[in-house]
Amino acid sequence: MSVLAITGGVGGAKLSVGLTHLLNPNQLVFLVNTGDDFRHLGLHISPDLDTLIYSLAGVACPKKGWGRRDETWSFLKTLEDLGGPAWFQLGDKDLALHVYRTQLMSNGGSLTEATKEIAEALDVTHSVLPCSDDPIATVVDTEDGQLSFQHYFVKYQCRPQVKGIQYDGADRARLNSSLDLATISMVVICPSNPYLSVDPILTIPDFRKFLQNSSIPVLAVSPIVQGRALKGPTAKIMTELGHTVNNKTIARHYKEILTGLIVNDGDAVDCETIRDLGIECVARNTVMHTLDDRVRLAQDTLDFGKALLSRKRCGR
Amino acid sequence: MSVLAITGGVGGAKLSVGLTHLLNPNQLVFLVNTGDDFRHLGLHISPDLDTLIYSLAGVACPKKGWGRRDETWSFLKTLEDLGGPAWFQLGDKDLALHVYRTQLMSNGGSLTEATKEIAEALDVTHSVLPCSDDPIATVVDTEDGQLSFQHYFVKYQCRPQVKGIQYDGADRARLNSSLDLATISMVVICPSNPYLSVDPILTIPDFRKFLQNSSIPVLAVSPIVQGRALKGPTAKIMTELGHTVNNKTIARHYKEILTGLIVNDGDAVDCETIRDLGIECVARNTVMHTLDDRVRLAQDTLDFGKALLSRKRCGR
Repeated sequence: MSVLAITGGVGGAKLSVGLTHLLNPNQLVFLVNTGDDFRHLGLHISPDLDTLIYSLAGVACPKKGWGRRDETWSFLKTLEDLGGPAWFQLGDKDLALHVYRTQLMSNGGSLTEATKEIAEALDVTHSVLPCSDDPIATVVDTEDGQLSFQHYFVKYQCRPQVKGIQYDGADRARLNSSLDLATISMVVICPSNPYLSVDPILTIPDFRKFLQNSSIPVLAVSPIVQGRALKGPTAKIMTELGHTVNNKTIARHYKEILTGLIVNDGDAVDCETIRDLGIECVARNTVMHTLDDRVRLAQDTLDFGKALLSRKRCGR
Repeated sequence: MSVLAITGGVGGAKLSVGLTHLLNPNQLVFLVNTGDDFRHLGLHISPDLDTLIYSLAGVACPKKGWGRRDETWSFLKTLEDLGGPAWFQLGDKDLALHVYRTQLMSNGGSLTEATKEIAEALDVTHSVLPCSDDPIATVVDTEDGQLSFQHYFVKYQCRPQVKGIQYDGADRARLNSSLDLATISMVVICPSNPYLSVDPILTIPDFRKFLQNSSIPVLAVSPIVQGRALKGPTAKIMTELGHTVNNKTIARHYKEILTGLIVNDGDAVDCETIRDLGIECVARNTVMHTLDDRVRLAQDTLDFGKALLSRKRCGR
């Protein structure tokens, strides 16, 4: 069995870490959002790839979830003193990765190749694949006009009201060619922001087509817990887009491709409505504070997927 | 009176600091070597400009002479761990300057404009001008083949034997257009390496022509003290190029443009031979350990220059 985990940054990376404790590199591949990628100070920055790699390598800052632990900030402080743009947090160690990746890519390497080299250098053994080597740029339509993702997310701290979201380039992007879809027997959508982190991946035409036509289980762990998002702007964006902040909205959002949804055990009552949409549902502890939480939720997710697989095999 | 100081990095920057204590920004302009400039990790690095600016700003590392004081090294250590090139020392604070300059230049700014912005941010009030905005690249012909300057100087630590030195682009480079030669009444060649730091500047055709045709005093402080160079590979290169390591070699090297040479007081005996070449000579304490040393030598240099000026005026 080979599991494909679809993930964005912080929230998704938590479940991803759990999955790596249960599945070896032959059994698990990560497909990562690149819609947040941008060029800043001449550097190619891939926030979600970095958060995942740092998390899998055990060097992520445990408090923030992104960036590196034991980070130092001499660069950013000095850049600010020089009058340079300091709105995007770049630690000294984190910067080394951005400079190195940019260098690898300007020497002709693809994002996939650069990511592979960086992951190997950090002893990450599972495949971490950018969803595409073609550029995808998440653009947020707000009351203040169109904002590139990082301007919306970091510079303006998600304050402007969202009217819509686009994934520039995603409809022309080709799925990462290193991913062999024929080997995938289960897809897990990690609890990342559906609009900002997962949709850029799902918009890639050949991947969307695969998910629509394939009979393998596609599971999602809901990022919503009792009417709230644990982290980030998911709930705020859902509201601004006119949706109710609950698991049903998540299920509806993924309806076209989803086989099963895992909701928080405090939301068990939602499962019935979700099953009405034709999507299986189980309630589990989806809050991940510790490594044990992550491994346990990963196990629950895989168990759910296996149950759906065998049910399918039995024709139920 | 307006003094033009020609300088490279560490040695020249010491006298430069002394000069700024005696002359205000209307009386002193720096013209700086760019032959050492190179692109590394996608960054435009100008070692001599940076050493001078850090020195004038009082933020240079006092021990090394280059780079910043109280520097941290998280970036370079992490880059090395990732497998990136770590042979060129880039501190976290120093890096901010390189990233910022590269950004300013990729936004269309010239090296002169970027340097001005950086100098102002660091409260450097004297004009620091790159010798040219056209690219000049010092290339060292060695027994191991041609080496770019930083490969010779940093990567191979000046070990390969030098057979010759070229300044690629210098013969087509235009002198920095911000420099108004009509206002210059004295030129001081700081005690930088003649072959690596000063010659790239002197090779610029319109500047060389100015120095040859002008009647203003052109002084140099010899980088040789009692048959040795105080710092760097000057003596080694002189020997490898077939010259004797002494002040006469320095005087001969600059003969075509030089009015006066300041040698170390321990080398007073050299002055007679130098005068035989038609170059005035005085012996002073040219070793600069402290700020007082730098200011004192700067004063001695300016006094020598004024004496030559008045002598010229008197027709002697």
